[in-house]
Amino acid sequence: MSSSTVDPADPVFQLHRGGKMAVVSTVPLTSRDDLSLAYTPGVARVCEAIAADPDLAHEYTWASRAVAVVTDGSAVLGLGNIGPSAALPVMEGKAVLFKQFGGVDAVPVCLATQDVDEIVAVVTALAPSFGGINLEDISAPRCFEVERRLDEALDIPVFHDDQHGTAIVVLAALRNAATLLNRKLGDLRVAVSGAGAAGVAVTRMLVAGGVDPERVVVCDSRGIISRQRTGLTGTKAELAELTNADGRHGDVTEALRDADVLIGVSGGLIPERAVAGMAPGGIVFALANPTPEVDPEVAARHVAVVATGRSDYPNQINNVLAFPGVFRGALQARASRITDAMKVAAADAIASVVAESLTPEAIVPSPLDPRVAPAVADAVAEAARRDGVARA
Amino acid sequence: MSSSTVDPADPVFQLHRGGKMAVVSTVPLTSRDDLSLAYTPGVARVCEAIAADPDLAHEYTWASRAVAVVTDGSAVLGLGNIGPSAALPVMEGKAVLFKQFGGVDAVPVCLATQDVDEIVAVVTALAPSFGGINLEDISAPRCFEVERRLDEALDIPVFHDDQHGTAIVVLAALRNAATLLNRKLGDLRVAVSGAGAAGVAVTRMLVAGGVDPERVVVCDSRGIISRQRTGLTGTKAELAELTNADGRHGDVTEALRDADVLIGVSGGLIPERAVAGMAPGGIVFALANPTPEVDPEVAARHVAVVATGRSDYPNQINNVLAFPGVFRGALQARASRITDAMKVAAADAIASVVAESLTPEAIVPSPLDPRVAPAVADAVAEAARRDGVARA
Repeated sequence: MSSSTVDPADPVFQLHRGGKMAVVSTVPLTSRDDLSLAYTPGVARVCEAIAADPDLAHEYTWASRAVAVVTDGSAVLGLGNIGPSAALPVMEGKAVLFKQFGGVDAVPVCLATQDVDEIVAVVTALAPSFGGINLEDISAPRCFEVERRLDEALDIPVFHDDQHGTAIVVLAALRNAATLLNRKLGDLRVAVSGAGAAGVAVTRMLVAGGVDPERVVVCDSRGIISRQRTGLTGTKAELAELTNADGRHGDVTEALRDADVLIGVSGGLIPERAVAGMAPGGIVFALANPTPEVDPEVAARHVAVVATGRSDYPNQINNVLAFPGVFRGALQARASRITDAMKVAAADAIASVVAESLTPEAIVPSPLDPRVAPAVADAVAEAARRDGVARA
Repeated sequence: MSSSTVDPADPVFQLHRGGKMAVVSTVPLTSRDDLSLAYTPGVARVCEAIAADPDLAHEYTWASRAVAVVTDGSAVLGLGNIGPSAALPVMEGKAVLFKQFGGVDAVPVCLATQDVDEIVAVVTALAPSFGGINLEDISAPRCFEVERRLDEALDIPVFHDDQHGTAIVVLAALRNAATLLNRKLGDLRVAVSGAGAAGVAVTRMLVAGGVDPERVVVCDSRGIISRQRTGLTGTKAELAELTNADGRHGDVTEALRDADVLIGVSGGLIPERAVAGMAPGGIVFALANPTPEVDPEVAARHVAVVATGRSDYPNQINNVLAFPGVFRGALQARASRITDAMKVAAADAIASVVAESLTPEAIVPSPLDPRVAPAVADAVAEAARRDGVARA
């Protein structure tokens, strides 16, 4: 049976029958009086009040809690460009995780276009119905432009989770790993394997969180990104300027030589001998799913702390630790955008939940830990207020 | 206090605080196993299956039950062009009525554009996430083009409720009124006051349901529409061709002279002397809200049956009798569009619910009658199959 065949006995297919979510009314609708309050004629008074003062939409509609989970289906999980309909189960899953962990009402929006201008136009047009936009599974480099342009166009938070959700949890995990190993973030030599959406965001987030950019080396499929490499444009040219002060070049083995930290966000396999070349007492986050860049048991022979993206190993770096609380906090503060300081605050909050009980196998909370989202939300809302982007 | 001021003691504002709807998960999300079924890694198998066979999206996502309630905020209730944010309370109300009466999961989509090309592009891009599109409160004549182009572009039902929802319930009510008065639809002389979205759709629906177009006269704000009138374009030119075989001209008083039926969908007041000129034993549907075109008590002096759009008079012509069942039936049948026969079937189903107990004050069911939506859904699904537009 091919992997794309439906197996009706598979509990995954049984669970997904009819989808994973529903809309419910939060008001009574069983009498004529109910209808005349929730719908005509009563509702007209609320409409008129919002027309006179648009700010009231926050108070009297669900937009204050509603987030659109927007994809174009171009980079779904590890499956690639499978299109909007096939992406919908992931977006539904994301939506119900938003609700379960953040109390956020999220709606899947799978777009029948992969054109950057069209995506920006569509999401801009949708914005009045929502309090925030979570971009999801949009391929690099288009995702960078989509996010940048929407962030400029809209006065509600725009957040590409594949970039920033991952980056926030990586920073949280690295903070705790460094604490555990009695190291300072600013001293660590970090190799990032992968320069797609997650690799770029992780690099920037680590720098925002205290890692020294001069000690960071980023690899793409062609090897180490450096100022010497020709033909680099856009985001990769920026990475070349920001990182790799030593001007290293070569492959991932060279990038890992004497490195303290490997962060794999590429899906490309990394040979054991490359990991063996890292400095002693190192840290490996091998985040590709379902096959980590380095087998975690192999990595553990050479380094002190190992994390993956998988639920069946310790230290799962899972975005669900970040996005529900990030949006809950941003919505609570009515933030107009999500700043770097808000992301760093989210990472610190995630790290803090387990800071008192660190072990090499528990540098991040469980994705199910109910303390995480409220802590992240509070930290994000507070950072929004400090950054002057909050309206509440 | 102006009508656009918030009165915190007003039960309408109390009810609307925080909005009227929420998203819920329909699957468990409390264990690691739950997450690995509903989200990664399990969800990837469902995505791959849909990528291989897009038809499976119907079975394994909520799109089979999900409808977008789309507005541009240009013609909201009787309030006019109040924009997308101020329209949101109406769309939320619509969404929860969809769920309450039709079991349909509806999502409000209020667009920050009133450009026809942009509305068509946005809704086309959104379509993979939904099983149907309910257009709402889009002003005429733009609404006609938006609906026509979306109907052509999409293979899911597109339905402008202000047009067809109203028209379906009017046809249902007129059928029962005619039965009650022992008249045949094809013999009735009908005056439609108003040639906006509802007036045009009502006229077409009545003709599809058996009214003789030659015996129909439609008035707009300038008077009777006839082939003699100059400068008519688009929909009004079509109405001039279709209706008014006698070539009547003049104002609404002239339109009502010897008419059996007045259908007011204009908001423009109609003087009592005009109603007094109708044929004896007539029918008046004065549907403007909150102020009917003719006071129903005044109308009752001159005609045998009176209906309004208001909940505080008998015979409320309320769209909620139509749209939940229409979409439920169209979704059940996986209809690619909503045909005239499906609308007529919906009207007949609504009429049939009270056909055995007709009185002049009960020609339509109560909006809360739980028998209506299932009857409409079954009739619509069956008509879709007869018309060859069903896929299930």
